Amino acid sequence: MTTDFAATRAQFHLPEGVIYLDGNSLGPLPVAAKARVVQAIEAEWGEMLITGWNKAGWMEMPARVGNRIARLIGAEEGHVVMGDTLSIKVYQALASALEMNPGRKVILSDTGNFPSDLYMAEGLARTLANGTVLKTVAPEEVMGALDDSVAVMMVTEVDYRTGRRHDMAALTRRAHEVGVLAVWDLAHSAGAFPVGVAAGGADFAVGCSYKYLNSGPGGPAFIYVAPRHAEAARPALSGWLGHEAPFAFDLSYRPGRGIERMRVGTPPILQLAALDAALDVWDAVDLDDLRARSLWLTDRFIAGVEGACPMLTLATPRANAERGSQVSFRHPEGYAIMQALIARGVIGDFRAPDILRFGFTPLYIGADEVDRAVTILAEIMATGAWDRPQYKTRARVT
Amino acid sequence: MTTDFAATRAQFHLPEGVIYLDGNSLGPLPVAAKARVVQAIEAEWGEMLITGWNKAGWMEMPARVGNRIARLIGAEEGHVVMGDTLSIKVYQALASALEMNPGRKVILSDTGNFPSDLYMAEGLARTLANGTVLKTVAPEEVMGALDDSVAVMMVTEVDYRTGRRHDMAALTRRAHEVGVLAVWDLAHSAGAFPVGVAAGGADFAVGCSYKYLNSGPGGPAFIYVAPRHAEAARPALSGWLGHEAPFAFDLSYRPGRGIERMRVGTPPILQLAALDAALDVWDAVDLDDLRARSLWLTDRFIAGVEGACPMLTLATPRANAERGSQVSFRHPEGYAIMQALIARGVIGDFRAPDILRFGFTPLYIGADEVDRAVTILAEIMATGAWDRPQYKTRARVT
Repeated sequence: MTTDFAATRAQFHLPEGVIYLDGNSLGPLPVAAKARVVQAIEAEWGEMLITGWNKAGWMEMPARVGNRIARLIGAEEGHVVMGDTLSIKVYQALASALEMNPGRKVILSDTGNFPSDLYMAEGLARTLANGTVLKTVAPEEVMGALDDSVAVMMVTEVDYRTGRRHDMAALTRRAHEVGVLAVWDLAHSAGAFPVGVAAGGADFAVGCSYKYLNSGPGGPAFIYVAPRHAEAARPALSGWLGHEAPFAFDLSYRPGRGIERMRVGTPPILQLAALDAALDVWDAVDLDDLRARSLWLTDRFIAGVEGACPMLTLATPRANAERGSQVSFRHPEGYAIMQALIARGVIGDFRAPDILRFGFTPLYIGADEVDRAVTILAEIMATGAWDRPQYKTRARVT
Repeated sequence: MTTDFAATRAQFHLPEGVIYLDGNSLGPLPVAAKARVVQAIEAEWGEMLITGWNKAGWMEMPARVGNRIARLIGAEEGHVVMGDTLSIKVYQALASALEMNPGRKVILSDTGNFPSDLYMAEGLARTLANGTVLKTVAPEEVMGALDDSVAVMMVTEVDYRTGRRHDMAALTRRAHEVGVLAVWDLAHSAGAFPVGVAAGGADFAVGCSYKYLNSGPGGPAFIYVAPRHAEAARPALSGWLGHEAPFAFDLSYRPGRGIERMRVGTPPILQLAALDAALDVWDAVDLDDLRARSLWLTDRFIAGVEGACPMLTLATPRANAERGSQVSFRHPEGYAIMQALIARGVIGDFRAPDILRFGFTPLYIGADEVDRAVTILAEIMATGAWDRPQYKTRARVT
């Protein structure tokens, strides 16, 4: 282990008295982010005004920051760009892939995919109105459902509820054997473990930056297009900043060079500044160390909870290779149990219908937090402390 | 006049020695924005973490802030929502409108529309692949081109180059007479003068917040859907936050109530915080006062430049009713002239092929800036000071 996780921990602000096991939903504040955003506001926006687009490098930020993410997802340099939201990037990837595989009309996904990906696919199919359909199967049935009727396989590498991890290389290989293009959603992968989009053969990949990458609420998404498709992919969302020459103000669209064509409108500079600062932490992180620590933490949590809370059922695969960096348990009263945990400072989240979800983010979570979380959860389960009216009233959970 | 424009001016940071006539491209920094964004970073993201979505009201921000913009564009409360970029919102509005007008295949726009709107329409038409075409005519020919072949008229109220203003009510009335739906782009209208989307009968309206509304680089866009269409419009970009019950995590999309369905992915909270602070300035602004001051400033600039610079040709309509809040002049060496102006602290911008563009933003620009800008421009033109190599090298102009 060469990565100093005490040093990475020191680069985050975590509130007193909180054990934060929800960094897979919204990562915590990197200490450097505030100063970097203030710089973007005062020294750049305030002083440079419109000239910030050139002088402060705003215009190149989506590609520059995208390159920093490329390393984390195993992508070739120059083939990742930031912008919009994950849902928008899903639409772009799907629309491009469908167009590149004419004659086939099926988008294959699984029931463990994040619903927004499915909704975007539905919206695209409805817009195309050419017989394109979204077909979903159980996560373990994706491999078997790949055949020559399928145009695109769209899967999220790690299931947002169970933490189950698809085998990217194996699924993609099979997809390619039967002429299917692969779109990978890395929402729960990027920053969670070493991802290999190039090695795994992904055709497209998309992800968000506000989970394991800690860019803050509503931080921009990223999209990767394999170099072999870079000049062939056509974004349905063809905005001016994806144009070959945005400032020529031509009346007709011509796709920009490579990944640049996946840009749409004006990039969100304040959010990008926060993300840029958040990525500094990663410069000193070896991703194999990250994975080793993640597995150590998740194994420890599973063993602790299974030992102390027999009424909770593990929903996450036990095999290391089959999971991401989260652990989920099922319980019919999962909602109330999570509320009781949150009231005691252990923040995880609940996912309908019965999932208690805990994210283990090695940059700032260690064995001490794991052990304390186990102790508090065990006490709640042993005493039935979750069984109170105030924990059962459903507020919106995010 | 009841609005105190000295008081609004005091709420902006403007760099020393700069006459900023480019607020129609990127508005300057509202003094309150920094503290508001820092609050979102430290007190909300930093301390509330994931619970900020409920506790800090992040989840409702797109609708709450949208309502603040509703007043500025003459929209009914509850029918404007923030998110994404203007290009994305154009796509949503167009896709919805086309679906609501089946059997017609023409999107009518004009050659003065902002190119990204045209590119998004092209991308949508290409995706639909059902014969939908984008037809563009000269701005003054839109009225005559409205007929029963047209499904949607998509026009930007104020031409980004010339400052020419379309008559929203008249064009929309004619559009409706022949069964055409009207999508209005308010990029150069919102915050520039009183807009009347409800009074004008607009079916959809979209706009950005970083120009006259001063939300900062890459601030989010807005979309308006007329109440009569609120439950009929179907966004092609059907993301989870536009779902009727996002946190039910259903596998199928059901559109949310009214304007909520136009939301797509996770909203950019830091950019929304800056926008929210920027909108505070508007609370004390009467929009009729704003318009009166805008016309006073633009008339003064036109008279000054025409008197001192006979070699510049006015590109903006002389009639008050036919323009927005910018003034443009043409000159074959417009690029170099603008560079010479910028070197002397007068920031406007250049738009190909020959347009010198000056935005007059009454919240922080007054007669003094107008007069000084005229003097400096007159000196440049009289001395030929623009005719230097360093002003002729084309860098990217934004």
